[in-house]
Amino acid sequence: MKTEKKPLILVTNDDGIMAPGVRALVEVMKELGDVAVVAPDKAQSGMGHAITINSTLRINKSNIYNVLHEYSCSGTPVDCVKIAVNKILHRKPDLCVSGINHGSNSSISVIYSGTMSAAVEGAIESIASIGFSLCDHSIDADFSAAKIVVRSIAQNVMKNGLPEGSCLNVNIPPLHIDELKGIRVCRQAKANWIEELDERKDPSGNSYYWLTGSFQNFEKGNTETDAYALDNGFVSVVPVQFDMTAHRAIPILNQWNFEIKK
Amino acid sequence: MKTEKKPLILVTNDDGIMAPGVRALVEVMKELGDVAVVAPDKAQSGMGHAITINSTLRINKSNIYNVLHEYSCSGTPVDCVKIAVNKILHRKPDLCVSGINHGSNSSISVIYSGTMSAAVEGAIESIASIGFSLCDHSIDADFSAAKIVVRSIAQNVMKNGLPEGSCLNVNIPPLHIDELKGIRVCRQAKANWIEELDERKDPSGNSYYWLTGSFQNFEKGNTETDAYALDNGFVSVVPVQFDMTAHRAIPILNQWNFEIKK
Repeated sequence: MKTEKKPLILVTNDDGIMAPGVRALVEVMKELGDVAVVAPDKAQSGMGHAITINSTLRINKSNIYNVLHEYSCSGTPVDCVKIAVNKILHRKPDLCVSGINHGSNSSISVIYSGTMSAAVEGAIESIASIGFSLCDHSIDADFSAAKIVVRSIAQNVMKNGLPEGSCLNVNIPPLHIDELKGIRVCRQAKANWIEELDERKDPSGNSYYWLTGSFQNFEKGNTETDAYALDNGFVSVVPVQFDMTAHRAIPILNQWNFEIKK
Repeated sequence: MKTEKKPLILVTNDDGIMAPGVRALVEVMKELGDVAVVAPDKAQSGMGHAITINSTLRINKSNIYNVLHEYSCSGTPVDCVKIAVNKILHRKPDLCVSGINHGSNSSISVIYSGTMSAAVEGAIESIASIGFSLCDHSIDADFSAAKIVVRSIAQNVMKNGLPEGSCLNVNIPPLHIDELKGIRVCRQAKANWIEELDERKDPSGNSYYWLTGSFQNFEKGNTETDAYALDNGFVSVVPVQFDMTAHRAIPILNQWNFEIKK
């Protein structure tokens, strides 16, 4: 009798290899395949799609989760995906999952998010990839409902694959499983962060700043958006692409007069 | 007689405030308006859309370019835009330009690029924004043709505005102005980087890695792409958006079976 080959699943995150969110993700993935964890050795929130090119990278064997491979990495979440595929696994995994992030990565946060950038990097490398975030920043957040959601979505992706050039941005409201209304496929809401640069003085009297902000949703009430789904008790699933071309703008720009010769 | 108010132009980059490329950009912008330079105090290449949220930010007055405002910033290119708008200018500039980068940011590089992420951040904040890159990595690259291109494109943007939710990714081949074939509006080519993790040993015998790679264009010969334009002596102009939703994938995902209740 032929043994069915188990899928190889790469797990990463941006809160660091010891965050409770990645533990929850690893627990679900161990049910679904052989797991490799390659995650940052420290918190890397807000790192976006940063890669480490002006300094060196290190990886260290780790032994927290009893999985096939497990390394912490000195770099960003995107570095973790690159080094996992090229130096640790030596092949593309069948699935790449990132998270579970402690805090929302909905709407415009997708672009600042290390969690989601790892998933986008997976998509760039033609790996079926998903970023998961629980809308609860606390270190002792309850991931029990999130784990059920993760399992359902990961199983769908493993069964159906993902449209070429896309990955998924999954955000989960901080609710009990019985309170969750369901899973809704959405688009990214038009929103941004209103910056608040908190100015302080160091002991020498020089100013320094903490970057903080408040979230502003420009299309409240629009039922197609991830922000709306989350506000109304649904898990939001947004397909995300790495083609950043604003295709609709091309015909407009073609009417401009670009004169560069004398 | 009423004096016409000059436009306020924010200049940033990712190679650092002392890079020759930002000097070239400042020189052109001084012809077009009042200039504020807020740029990283060190090279920030490959930082993507990273923001500094786990450590503090500092800005320091600088006096290289004889402009209205000039500060170096300890953070990323995106931090520079945020701190410029919120703490230095206290208003939105009329134009935000980033670069001129030493090296290409065409096709997939848009997503790793600090130069382009600053422009994307400008767009998120509803500022007309452009990232400029010269396809020449060398520190003593010749920016003379690039300056003519920059002037033409910046003037077009100031005159016409940009479609909502978009900025421009401008890449300039390393040619003399007489050799440039013209300016072409394009889309981002499907391409990626083939990673080469250069493994070395430190004096203690432990491994470390340098992330390098070679560029791979999956659609050579496709005349719509930025990679093609650059290979054929044209300046490429790609409109870039921050809505990362893969809209075409939504109907496909809506056919999936997301079961989360027992």
